[in-house]
Amino acid sequence: MGRTYLAGTGLTRFGKFADASLASLGRSAALEAVRDAGIEPQQVQMIACGSARSGILQNHESGVGQRIGWEIGIEGVPVYNEKAYCASGAVAFNLANICVASGEHDVALVVGVEKMSGRDGKGRPLTSDGVMLESEVGFTPPAYYAMAAQRHMSTYGTTRRQIAGVAVKNRRAAHSNTKAQYREPISIDEVLSAPQVAGPLGLLDCCPTGDGASAAVIVSAEGAQRLGISPTIEITASVIGSGLYCHEQRDLTSFALDKSVSLRAYERAGVAPHDIDVAEVHDSFSIAEIIHYEDLGFCQAGMGGSLIDSGATALGGQIPVNAGGGLLNRGHPLGATGVAQIAELADQLRGRSGDRQVAGARLGLAHISGGFMGLDFATSGVTILEARQSG
Amino acid sequence: MGRTYLAGTGLTRFGKFADASLASLGRSAALEAVRDAGIEPQQVQMIACGSARSGILQNHESGVGQRIGWEIGIEGVPVYNEKAYCASGAVAFNLANICVASGEHDVALVVGVEKMSGRDGKGRPLTSDGVMLESEVGFTPPAYYAMAAQRHMSTYGTTRRQIAGVAVKNRRAAHSNTKAQYREPISIDEVLSAPQVAGPLGLLDCCPTGDGASAAVIVSAEGAQRLGISPTIEITASVIGSGLYCHEQRDLTSFALDKSVSLRAYERAGVAPHDIDVAEVHDSFSIAEIIHYEDLGFCQAGMGGSLIDSGATALGGQIPVNAGGGLLNRGHPLGATGVAQIAELADQLRGRSGDRQVAGARLGLAHISGGFMGLDFATSGVTILEARQSG
Repeated sequence: MGRTYLAGTGLTRFGKFADASLASLGRSAALEAVRDAGIEPQQVQMIACGSARSGILQNHESGVGQRIGWEIGIEGVPVYNEKAYCASGAVAFNLANICVASGEHDVALVVGVEKMSGRDGKGRPLTSDGVMLESEVGFTPPAYYAMAAQRHMSTYGTTRRQIAGVAVKNRRAAHSNTKAQYREPISIDEVLSAPQVAGPLGLLDCCPTGDGASAAVIVSAEGAQRLGISPTIEITASVIGSGLYCHEQRDLTSFALDKSVSLRAYERAGVAPHDIDVAEVHDSFSIAEIIHYEDLGFCQAGMGGSLIDSGATALGGQIPVNAGGGLLNRGHPLGATGVAQIAELADQLRGRSGDRQVAGARLGLAHISGGFMGLDFATSGVTILEARQSG
Repeated sequence: MGRTYLAGTGLTRFGKFADASLASLGRSAALEAVRDAGIEPQQVQMIACGSARSGILQNHESGVGQRIGWEIGIEGVPVYNEKAYCASGAVAFNLANICVASGEHDVALVVGVEKMSGRDGKGRPLTSDGVMLESEVGFTPPAYYAMAAQRHMSTYGTTRRQIAGVAVKNRRAAHSNTKAQYREPISIDEVLSAPQVAGPLGLLDCCPTGDGASAAVIVSAEGAQRLGISPTIEITASVIGSGLYCHEQRDLTSFALDKSVSLRAYERAGVAPHDIDVAEVHDSFSIAEIIHYEDLGFCQAGMGGSLIDSGATALGGQIPVNAGGGLLNRGHPLGATGVAQIAELADQLRGRSGDRQVAGARLGLAHISGGFMGLDFATSGVTILEARQSG
């Protein structure tokens, strides 16, 4: 397997765009990524597209990537459409990375896209697929994370204020992010007094949905040379895994799959958690970010609350997490999120993040958890990117 | 890229199974494939699952492969869920083949599954995704193929009886296939007098839908050695492409994408059309098989009708096509078909096809066309398998 490079990224604003379609969102991000890479659409050799619920929500299940490719003039190439819950974009990225690393293709376009507003399947719930019975009786993602929060507080003494601290930190980070849905600063007290969703979690502890798209161009060294481009970010690890979440360990405070996938990613990239300069972590709920700190090895089990208190994961800290505001503020159009994290990291590693730039960022990590954590069919993804002098 | 081998296959009966779920169908085929390969489920290192409309029809869009893997005891591995219309299974096979050829994984399980009866999304049309407007005004797949038939008859003098001959040949071939939905022989006159669907095509010119699943195990040479198995079928080409169908050439009698994908597959396998001993071809409609003969190079453009008349594509002929009855008689549960073709070919290449065995079959080709041919976002897949003395 050869080395692979991130040559360009694209990202739409996230929000509720009544007039946008999957194709219009996807093509905007895709064109931006292609231009950012300095190539033409016709030079793309394959497309991988992640979109978790385009079928159920938009009645367009099979041909999303084909449609986007066709609209920007890419024809005749292999197109893969990935469906893996919230991790769909990360799976598409992983697949494209394998295809480029293997030499099967030199230039891959990855697109993540989702349209969750104005959905066609009226009345259909937004909760994860295939768990309809559980959803009907109230076991929705917010309920699951609420129980995880209760358990984390009970087992480790994590406080409600620490959990709220994630929401406050990420909102502060989102302030300069014009792609984010929510940017006005909030206080701990505002988080605590927001309408309750599932105790102890309130409205400001939960990410919004939305519409949006993201894209990335992956090239091999041969591809870069042939195209005459010099990408500066190497993809040193892209690992996904599906299966067990918390079933076996019977513990709500940790996700075994995140641990095993991140360990494989660290090993593949030859780095350790403390080497990471900036991270995008799946903060679908505030408590999730605390749990992920621990599973990703940013701190010991049970110390996630203290890590928030220490300021280490805020801008200016040891390892800024979600420096663009995370899912909590950017919003979480399912399939778009995994590649949006990569785009955010790429800006950091190229020193393009403006007010939210992490000084000297060289190693970036993106983490996503897809599927309904309480059940056994889910997907985790961890990507590690490293800034190089030149590809 | 290393060599890859087909180590085992599995196939359920196709039909309308009210009590079956996606998971129950998929796990049956998957377990059969794993056992056929002589391995344990826990030795599988990745899963690729093709299912075109599980979301729209069964309200289960993202986690089909994860669910099937979990139910047979495969945990923690990467799972890819592929959505590419009728070609979904072929795309999953292609992706798994790349992952194994690249050395990323040694042992991959491919599953194709679809449940089209008892669908959850009541009232939703079965026509291809994203082309709802065209469907509403009557431009459905049967209508498209009816126009293609009219054009083929007008341009090349192909007769209605030749087109009907495909249905008669494939029904005769299905007679010994216990997995097929339709097995009673039919006559040319019965095809001609069947209720008309879209002139000139009648009911017996159109494949039925249905429920079903198929599976395959792909291994590398290293994987086979480590597992202590000796697969005898090499995968010498697996090529997919998406994009243009007939838009550019403005010709209903040929699919440019099938031509380009099959040319790449022949080149990769180092063989020519006349080398193929047995083929599975996407006969969603009788006329389609005639068009595909020409696009795949089994005969010259316009000569598909004569090829049927010659008997060359019947059992005992020069290149038997759809020796198991094809989509017309097995049925076409979208995502299951691509891998079902591979399973049928594998039986032929291992001399396990009983009454429908093609004597001395060594080289097999599977072809699938996915998407709505009249539009520009579609997928073609061609796989070439070669029997070896030992893997």
